Amino acid sequence: MTSISFADLVTLLERIFVAHGCSAPVAAILAANCAGAERDAAHSHGLFRIEGYLSTLASGWVDGSAVPVLEDARTSFLRVDAANGFAQPALALAAPLAMARARETGACVVAIRRSHHFAALWPDVEPFAEQGLVALAMVNSMAVVVPAGARQPVYGTNPLAFAAPREGGIVVFDQAVSTMAHGDVQIAAREGRSLPPRTGVDANGAPTDDPRAVLDGGALLAFGGHKGASIALMIEIMAAALTGGAFSHEVDWSAHPGAQTPCTGETIILIDPSRGGCGSGFAARVDQMLAALLNAGQTRLPGDRRFAARVNAMTKGIPISTTQLNRLQAWAKGPTQSPLRTYL
Amino acid sequence: MTSISFADLVTLLERIFVAHGCSAPVAAILAANCAGAERDAAHSHGLFRIEGYLSTLASGWVDGSAVPVLEDARTSFLRVDAANGFAQPALALAAPLAMARARETGACVVAIRRSHHFAALWPDVEPFAEQGLVALAMVNSMAVVVPAGARQPVYGTNPLAFAAPREGGIVVFDQAVSTMAHGDVQIAAREGRSLPPRTGVDANGAPTDDPRAVLDGGALLAFGGHKGASIALMIEIMAAALTGGAFSHEVDWSAHPGAQTPCTGETIILIDPSRGGCGSGFAARVDQMLAALLNAGQTRLPGDRRFAARVNAMTKGIPISTTQLNRLQAWAKGPTQSPLRTYL
Repeated sequence: MTSISFADLVTLLERIFVAHGCSAPVAAILAANCAGAERDAAHSHGLFRIEGYLSTLASGWVDGSAVPVLEDARTSFLRVDAANGFAQPALALAAPLAMARARETGACVVAIRRSHHFAALWPDVEPFAEQGLVALAMVNSMAVVVPAGARQPVYGTNPLAFAAPREGGIVVFDQAVSTMAHGDVQIAAREGRSLPPRTGVDANGAPTDDPRAVLDGGALLAFGGHKGASIALMIEIMAAALTGGAFSHEVDWSAHPGAQTPCTGETIILIDPSRGGCGSGFAARVDQMLAALLNAGQTRLPGDRRFAARVNAMTKGIPISTTQLNRLQAWAKGPTQSPLRTYL
Repeated sequence: MTSISFADLVTLLERIFVAHGCSAPVAAILAANCAGAERDAAHSHGLFRIEGYLSTLASGWVDGSAVPVLEDARTSFLRVDAANGFAQPALALAAPLAMARARETGACVVAIRRSHHFAALWPDVEPFAEQGLVALAMVNSMAVVVPAGARQPVYGTNPLAFAAPREGGIVVFDQAVSTMAHGDVQIAAREGRSLPPRTGVDANGAPTDDPRAVLDGGALLAFGGHKGASIALMIEIMAAALTGGAFSHEVDWSAHPGAQTPCTGETIILIDPSRGGCGSGFAARVDQMLAALLNAGQTRLPGDRRFAARVNAMTKGIPISTTQLNRLQAWAKGPTQSPLRTYL
């Protein structure tokens, strides 16, 4: 094992994305996002994802140099056409206006369509909370979750992320509606670990603890039974029907072998809490709520583990194996130097 | 058993609420709400609640003739002070302007504080979806749910309700973050039934299937473990910190014996889907999503059971026992004719 600074990792990932067909602005956004997940020890959405990004870019399924188009639908509702590119550049395009509108009117919805989301969702809400806004994000993905009472997967892992300012910081959570994030199932399969009970089903709909059976024609279950499934449905409606994006069950990348990034939609709701009943005292009230949780015996708040990893990485660097670093450096030389088969 | 028409039940409940200290407008709103739940066979929020309403009114904890005040904070953010009255009249006051603002700007938040919510949450979102809007509502309540990893209850049952238009109708769900609605625990206790496994804990924090142990110093668990608990936290922040209402763990009715209605806050988010990427095709897209669920083997959609009961009740009347009808008629004569002890 060795380590790499956050800045150096961002630069390296940027070179990789550019070498594999991304425009400079898209590469910069994806690199910061992916390096941020690795820095926060959110490994399932960190360097682990690079192979999938490159494989998808090579397949022609996603446009790495897409230029998103901001459609100013209404005062408190912005539409963005991601133009078959990644969701993060589309959100980055809308963010300044969305924040201004939320401050001016009290709330603003950003509805992104034709967007590929292959990253963690907390990076989409954290910056807004750091600027004093409450943010709620929903993304649908690809059919890997069986609805309550059904036989076939219809829902995506459909993460929901929420962030709010607190005194001197933020509180944030990001959770898939599936019992487990799809990336974590992939990691378990790669590492030969079995899954916890009631995580998923195999291709015949029978419960299984084998991650390969879930990935190979099987499916995940929603957390909390029909209640988690209801949230999955809300996210399909909010992220796809509202935005004009595809439902998870409509994603069809069969003509693009190697494609891994679902092309669907994303909705972000921004609210300015200073317009609420506590005015500028909102962050202090959030702190009082979090204090009550600790007082009741809860030992960790949402986001705590990531924030601790972040502080650690910023002082000591991000841990990385020499093998992984070598692979990244080879990928930075472009597809010619790192043939497709190395990441397929 | 006998039956009563929806209109007659509304009239009877209105008389009861007026006889027990509610103003005419408040009585009309609560009566329609409660009769609607009974009509839809949502018994835990129907006639079962009347005793609790009357007991709370008699205790002086809630103001049955409160006049809510609409504070027009910003273009897309309305604040309402429910003035220690019920949440439903406060929402009714804000609804016309909130709908107009959502249509004009694309979105509108309604933040209600100092409000008592003792009813189902779906009646708060259904009318908006029937008018073509997407609606999301969150209410916190009183500390009866233990956070993930904690020893004491901090969260309320904190329901989340969501409704969206579909072709010729709406899709709607309303679910508590607790494993079970508090009203259903009360009904199980009254009927001497035990609870499903992993529903709640007793006063010592030990798992129990005895509803009385949950009600008597014990607590409920959140659905889906830490993921359900995260949603409970989001709802505390949205319904209390944002609105200026009390957190569930701050509700203190100790000076008002007989009080049962939590005085907290509620937030409703309205979005006009015609501003989204599908424009007027939104409802058709929602239908396509619901068709995919049925196609995958799901046998019932959210809201279906209630809608079926509603149709049945509108043609055949609402089933009611003679005993219950007699009690309601006695209550309609006022507190003098039906002393406090009959419903404490």
